[in-house]
Amino acid sequence: MELLEKRIQRDGIVKAGNVLKVDGFLNHQMDIVLFNEMGKEFKRLFADRPVNKILTIEASGIGIACVAAQYFHVPVVFAKKAQSVNIDGEVYHTRIESFTHKRVYDVIVSRKYLGPEDHVLIIDDFLANGCAVNGLLDLTERAGAAVEGIGIAIEKGQQAGGKLLRGRGYRVESLAIIESMDEKTGEIRFRR
Amino acid sequence: MELLEKRIQRDGIVKAGNVLKVDGFLNHQMDIVLFNEMGKEFKRLFADRPVNKILTIEASGIGIACVAAQYFHVPVVFAKKAQSVNIDGEVYHTRIESFTHKRVYDVIVSRKYLGPEDHVLIIDDFLANGCAVNGLLDLTERAGAAVEGIGIAIEKGQQAGGKLLRGRGYRVESLAIIESMDEKTGEIRFRR
Repeated sequence: MELLEKRIQRDGIVKAGNVLKVDGFLNHQMDIVLFNEMGKEFKRLFADRPVNKILTIEASGIGIACVAAQYFHVPVVFAKKAQSVNIDGEVYHTRIESFTHKRVYDVIVSRKYLGPEDHVLIIDDFLANGCAVNGLLDLTERAGAAVEGIGIAIEKGQQAGGKLLRGRGYRVESLAIIESMDEKTGEIRFRR
Repeated sequence: MELLEKRIQRDGIVKAGNVLKVDGFLNHQMDIVLFNEMGKEFKRLFADRPVNKILTIEASGIGIACVAAQYFHVPVVFAKKAQSVNIDGEVYHTRIESFTHKRVYDVIVSRKYLGPEDHVLIIDDFLANGCAVNGLLDLTERAGAAVEGIGIAIEKGQQAGGKLLRGRGYRVESLAIIESMDEKTGEIRFRR
């Protein structure tokens, strides 16, 4: 998606350790005009899929998912990072490792809001090694829901997450795929 | 706001300890059609204010803030619960006590995305004792930003947060104000 790639080129900052900072428009300050264009593009890409729910994970997926949901006319459910492992029978539970925060989160979704009747589009801001998406897939599987696709804002193509998910047969659509980044020059190249 | 009050009546669940569960449409599963109506109402209520940024806090404020931002044509910034107290000079920092989670969070906003040029509308899903809003006010004060108003989905009128904020001169607009709830009968009464 050209608009997003241009914005990453203009405002993204490459940091040491393969880190791309996009907190000026994507995941701290959020450009809602851009989010609307991303939402339309997700709808275009998944127009043939019978999506009846969007699933994301707190916190930075929520804004993109909510704006995109307007084009699908469906509700959004966000998986919650559990504060305490007070996991009763009312929730589906999985664990997600965060490389950014170097810890493991217990993540839950209420059984009331995800079930066998659901056709889910998973949306998140980043796809790198795929830990967050794999956690969301685990939750949909436990719920017996169908996964119609995975919509990502920025995929870090140098990391294995996208390739592994596509290899498992999932339809992954990333609005921008980073081919390479150079922390010395700040250069960012996209996959075509 | 009648639409929200009716939805709370229909789908809200009163639990022991003055707890109102609205996770079917507001803060776990999110009804984006409702959020749009709430966004329009916030715009109507704050139409006279020169808002150039919406400030909220992760996680459940983000969806409402992002959908509302479309009617204000402004970006959203969400305050982040810091994973580690690695508070460098690049962020404003405050502490917020959560009664729900019975812990204190370090909360940050980057100095890059909040400053003296900003006219901020604070948006959150709930106002009870006001801890979260007070934390956001503290961040805007540290940033030298002006607070144009505080927009809340559901205010628990039995708790002191709203009264204290209005007493300090802030314009607080809550789309639904709970007057009383009865956990035995499930009855919910709204303030007129």
